[in-house]
Amino acid sequence: MNTIYFDHISATPLHPAVKEIMINFIENDNFGNPLSQHQIGDAAVEALEGARGQVAQLINAKPEEIVFTSNGTESINHAIKGVAFAKFKKGKHIVSTNIEHQSVARTLRVLMKLGYQVTAIPVDKYGLVDPNDVEKAITDNTILVSIMHANNEIGTIEPIAEIGKITRAKNVLFHTDAVASGGNISIDVDELGVDLLSIAANQFYGPSGVGALYIRPKTEIFPLIDGGTQENNRRAGTQNILGIVGMGKAAELARIEMPQRTEHLLKLKKAFVEKLNTLDEVHINGHPEISLPGLVSVSVEYVEGESMMIMLEGEGICVSTRSACAAGSLRASHVLVATGCDYVTAQGTLIFSFGVGNTLGDIDKAFAALTRSVAFLRSMSPLYKKK
Amino acid sequence: MNTIYFDHISATPLHPAVKEIMINFIENDNFGNPLSQHQIGDAAVEALEGARGQVAQLINAKPEEIVFTSNGTESINHAIKGVAFAKFKKGKHIVSTNIEHQSVARTLRVLMKLGYQVTAIPVDKYGLVDPNDVEKAITDNTILVSIMHANNEIGTIEPIAEIGKITRAKNVLFHTDAVASGGNISIDVDELGVDLLSIAANQFYGPSGVGALYIRPKTEIFPLIDGGTQENNRRAGTQNILGIVGMGKAAELARIEMPQRTEHLLKLKKAFVEKLNTLDEVHINGHPEISLPGLVSVSVEYVEGESMMIMLEGEGICVSTRSACAAGSLRASHVLVATGCDYVTAQGTLIFSFGVGNTLGDIDKAFAALTRSVAFLRSMSPLYKKK
Repeated sequence: MNTIYFDHISATPLHPAVKEIMINFIENDNFGNPLSQHQIGDAAVEALEGARGQVAQLINAKPEEIVFTSNGTESINHAIKGVAFAKFKKGKHIVSTNIEHQSVARTLRVLMKLGYQVTAIPVDKYGLVDPNDVEKAITDNTILVSIMHANNEIGTIEPIAEIGKITRAKNVLFHTDAVASGGNISIDVDELGVDLLSIAANQFYGPSGVGALYIRPKTEIFPLIDGGTQENNRRAGTQNILGIVGMGKAAELARIEMPQRTEHLLKLKKAFVEKLNTLDEVHINGHPEISLPGLVSVSVEYVEGESMMIMLEGEGICVSTRSACAAGSLRASHVLVATGCDYVTAQGTLIFSFGVGNTLGDIDKAFAALTRSVAFLRSMSPLYKKK
Repeated sequence: MNTIYFDHISATPLHPAVKEIMINFIENDNFGNPLSQHQIGDAAVEALEGARGQVAQLINAKPEEIVFTSNGTESINHAIKGVAFAKFKKGKHIVSTNIEHQSVARTLRVLMKLGYQVTAIPVDKYGLVDPNDVEKAITDNTILVSIMHANNEIGTIEPIAEIGKITRAKNVLFHTDAVASGGNISIDVDELGVDLLSIAANQFYGPSGVGALYIRPKTEIFPLIDGGTQENNRRAGTQNILGIVGMGKAAELARIEMPQRTEHLLKLKKAFVEKLNTLDEVHINGHPEISLPGLVSVSVEYVEGESMMIMLEGEGICVSTRSACAAGSLRASHVLVATGCDYVTAQGTLIFSFGVGNTLGDIDKAFAALTRSVAFLRSMSPLYKKK
């Protein structure tokens, strides 16, 4: 049975060219420590700095503004805790939203235990933040605004550039969690007006376990990890050079191939949404237009997302019910609840996230399998009454 | 020109079997997210948990006591900051030494800025800590003792098991930075009596950018990185599965091959030390017996370590002058100064760290090159007078 992988929001397969460069890197015995002052260290520096340039270019940053981390979560922790600890004398208030990824939400919860105050801005039914709400939430004690670029469960893209104008006018640092969007839609740190931006390689056909944090020059921020002088004293510890080389290549390819990838993903999404719209009591979550090109979140009434997921897997189709990082939790998604979706409907949710390797044929098969699973599960539901 | 690599303390080349397993992992498209609840996620879980077992076995721990991190530095930060933040209500005093790696020393300095007190225990001329000093330093406010297992600059192995008895009797948590020793000498977390132990794969022929932290059950410790439920809620963020698979294999090989590796390294070390002892005004640092089998730190009077290193590199021999993580600093090594070595002699220091791929022929070549460089540099020194 061929697998149809529709869970690119959890992890993307490696691009063939990324695989090739990583395998070559291993075969060529390029194992040096970039801080060693000899030829084997120099080769590692070259690999590291080449990748830094590639990642910088993806988001229109300068290489020296990029700090490599071990994943999106570390980038986010670094951004939020780093600013919170560096600026606590100015204030202890942080503005965020109620649809952030756990990496932001849990980090903020830890800071709250340490005496910080957090204002979580609500979103509309599409999951959109109103920039006016951000402006109103900022006080004299606000040291940071952290709002995600694109939501990883419903795909909605937030008005980051508009919020960036507000934070700049109010002289407050601005971080955006761009883990779901980075490498998938165009990002320009200057246009967005952000001071800090987090991305992860495994969202754009690079390896898992490597991320980056963009830090605008002169941003007051502490390291998350202290020790050696790596990453220009901003992130200690020997780097995952192999992963970073893979991330660099993936970033270069994402930048070059983005128009074609987007066109392909939008074609798949359009076809899938059209089919979904023919089903009864099925809702598509998130904004219909201002959204990630490859993601469709669908809530099906009277059935459990988990049950549908298991039935789809039985037909070789991999999807997810919510953020992988929250998998196993039985609570309704906080993102869907924030958009006003009721708990029962939220439980019947599946996230289909497409990738460059998927085809319209995959869409057809997945839709057929989904239709079968919904019909079967509804036939067993005491609540469902066929119209 | 063939390179002779004598800088294994900075990074080790990948073991051929580690290269093989990593290349296979890439080629087999094993890219899943371990938290995804489908077959592609399951394959990642299998790889992750297999490696966890291999790493646990290396240090006589249970798999569930191992948390994967992005390097030794992260493990150390997690251990020290995690305990400091979890136990600050009990007290804010930490006991350490004055020869720790920067990952410990700088982390402690950050904690001192946050109001913690640190007692740095001195060492003897061999770099050895006296366990009685540790006992005396512990107060009612002490929440953690952090003492390195083997020193990365001079190789001396500290009496961790004796200190472990003291910390256990005094009911104080005990962390050891075993980055330089892990995979190179035998480690048993129960014999050592430690609650926390940090290791890194690139010290034992595994990849750079992956480490592990051993956490004894019931240890009160906060995560360093908050977010998803990965690593049993102890370390959020998608793992570097490829690197972890490499670390697991490297740990297995280290455990199996350790006796032969040790024998080989000791043979090289003995041969090199015998040759060094024929030179005038040359000192071997660290303990002559209780020491890492593959490391020789040598201080040469009247010359600069940096100059010798550059001359050796001209002959294809890679060595280091100090901890790679402190490379570029012009100050004398804090480790050598702590052993009573004067600043001028400390400046003339080279660290030779051997590996399983080195031969007695390499030792001969390196010694001949060292002799030439010392003679040349001393001939230019206004201070040196030939005896």
